[in-house]
Amino acid sequence: MTSKYWSPVVSKLTPYVAGEQPLNPGVVKLNTNENPYPPSPRVLESIAQSTGDELRLYPDPNSQKLKRALAHHFELANDQIFVGNSSDEVLAHVFQALLKHDLPTLFPDVTYSFYPVYCGLYGIQYKTIPLTASFEIDLDDYAIPNGGIIFANPNAPTGVQLDTDLIEHFLKRHSESVVVIDEAYVDFGAESAARLIDRYPNVLVVQTFSKSRSLAGMRIGFALGNKDLIEGLERVKNSFNSYPLSRLANAAAVAAIEDREYFEAVTRNIVRSREELSAALRALGFQIIPSMANFVFASHSGHDAGFLYCRLKEQGVLVRHFSLPRIEQFLRITVGTPEQCESLLLALKAICLDECCSATLQGEK
Amino acid sequence: MTSKYWSPVVSKLTPYVAGEQPLNPGVVKLNTNENPYPPSPRVLESIAQSTGDELRLYPDPNSQKLKRALAHHFELANDQIFVGNSSDEVLAHVFQALLKHDLPTLFPDVTYSFYPVYCGLYGIQYKTIPLTASFEIDLDDYAIPNGGIIFANPNAPTGVQLDTDLIEHFLKRHSESVVVIDEAYVDFGAESAARLIDRYPNVLVVQTFSKSRSLAGMRIGFALGNKDLIEGLERVKNSFNSYPLSRLANAAAVAAIEDREYFEAVTRNIVRSREELSAALRALGFQIIPSMANFVFASHSGHDAGFLYCRLKEQGVLVRHFSLPRIEQFLRITVGTPEQCESLLLALKAICLDECCSATLQGEK
Repeated sequence: MTSKYWSPVVSKLTPYVAGEQPLNPGVVKLNTNENPYPPSPRVLESIAQSTGDELRLYPDPNSQKLKRALAHHFELANDQIFVGNSSDEVLAHVFQALLKHDLPTLFPDVTYSFYPVYCGLYGIQYKTIPLTASFEIDLDDYAIPNGGIIFANPNAPTGVQLDTDLIEHFLKRHSESVVVIDEAYVDFGAESAARLIDRYPNVLVVQTFSKSRSLAGMRIGFALGNKDLIEGLERVKNSFNSYPLSRLANAAAVAAIEDREYFEAVTRNIVRSREELSAALRALGFQIIPSMANFVFASHSGHDAGFLYCRLKEQGVLVRHFSLPRIEQFLRITVGTPEQCESLLLALKAICLDECCSATLQGEK
Repeated sequence: MTSKYWSPVVSKLTPYVAGEQPLNPGVVKLNTNENPYPPSPRVLESIAQSTGDELRLYPDPNSQKLKRALAHHFELANDQIFVGNSSDEVLAHVFQALLKHDLPTLFPDVTYSFYPVYCGLYGIQYKTIPLTASFEIDLDDYAIPNGGIIFANPNAPTGVQLDTDLIEHFLKRHSESVVVIDEAYVDFGAESAARLIDRYPNVLVVQTFSKSRSLAGMRIGFALGNKDLIEGLERVKNSFNSYPLSRLANAAAVAAIEDREYFEAVTRNIVRSREELSAALRALGFQIIPSMANFVFASHSGHDAGFLYCRLKEQGVLVRHFSLPRIEQFLRITVGTPEQCESLLLALKAICLDECCSATLQGEK
């Protein structure tokens, strides 16, 4: 459809399709990489303390308390921190502020599928660079003329990690390119590139509170980088929305950063469950790409991934399936609690048995 | 400053400058048109009920409950409602989705100073149309080729209202133009153009929860219009951020809309205080433009507005002063509680007395 009132870009957009948010609370929800554990009790307490008459007042437009907390956590300066209403909003500003140049922006062929959507929104040329056969990013392939580079690390939806030393090696030789590293899933055992910021003016790290800090429902994201990169983002943000974070989002985020102990315990649990889930899925005949994220990317030579997705959904287990080139035979499965993982495994066993039986019966006819 | 990593647009931006948010709670804050009364108790209760483990989960990306509540309130259909993280975000999407055309977008020379900022952000040509000498919008002046029209009604920072019948007359004769009406201040006695939506496919109304619903700290805005206009906004929103409203923002907004009685009592109080404040300021020699908003726009032939702004600030009373053509001799003063208005009037009386004394003394030398 189209409308004569729309700006020309609108008809050409292919919006991002977010994972389903089922209204039925009984579903085993392993489709959007939420954290299976609740937010820190200190976060809930901090929100409760801020829920009062002051909500009539605008929040601090610069989120100074939150920037100070993040600066302290990452051992950076306040002017090396940018915050936004989710890392999706931060990424949108990144594309507009730092990745719109004459040359194309580069990103992997298999990665967060929002990147080409942002390019469409802002009229940015892009070129996708194929992952290797084992779904790895080979940075040598990015040493071509470009208007900026962005990739997720660990990558989504594969979970594969790229070594930070390899990133540093690339930054050193390619200071002409902004390199944006989307670290939404970095806290589950991978290493952040934040440690490179003081030495490389061209690296920007983007993170979120949605995964490791159990706050997908609060919408909080941030970027870390050289102050010139941050200033570019601030200029766009201040031309878009002066106060992107509500008073409650600011309060929640500060408390989440301060409760380092809770964060470490939760992420440790998820890493353990991921390894257990990976082993159990392998035992069922799945191929699992080694993941450093809070999800596993799994395929089965004996079962079509789209079929498995549908059958799991019928049994009340929601996972994510992308009908996209190279990955249409994979399921992306969020690492849940041990109980949720068990429900998934039971459902998979039942489906596989069913199918084997029906195959056997058909064979007998 | 600039940086080689910035997209070309970034260096050319002139970001919006938001009103000051003082950290000292003792200040009489009449500078950003916040509501002096707290949010409805039902809003605070609804936030408290939603502050729990579910914050680990993403919100409903389509805010269906909130859209239903707004649709019911405005007697519209769900697909005639768009919601966003503040009306500033909604307006940003409006500029990108509906006002970027080959012909220039039109808006008044004196209006919300964020409009030219959005044009800069999205590369939109614009032309400002002078208000009349009495600071009114004359829609006949907008009957020229354009890529869309936007104005605030009541207008900011003047508070002057444009009659909805005049808007309807214009819509009828100019169906080729989108007409966006920014009704941030409509709930203090003015009439909304929402009643025109079912008859005119080209009118879009934008409103906010920041003023009449005492929720500036929560960041909630919305737009009402024909479903084609709304679909254009949804396409941009879904290419920018799938979940702009947090779980708590959704919960707060639904409760705020449902508590109609509280809303009506609060807005009634502010209208009464506005009339009292206007009369008291006139008694001090101020010229007051008749306002239908929760602020008054005041000038004094005997005192420079910039001087008054500074002296008031010294006395702990914060108002807003814009150093812009045509309005540099005005102060925009938010209507506070009766006590806050009294503090303002006392401070103004002291300043005027001081100045008269010092003028007399200087005359005696």
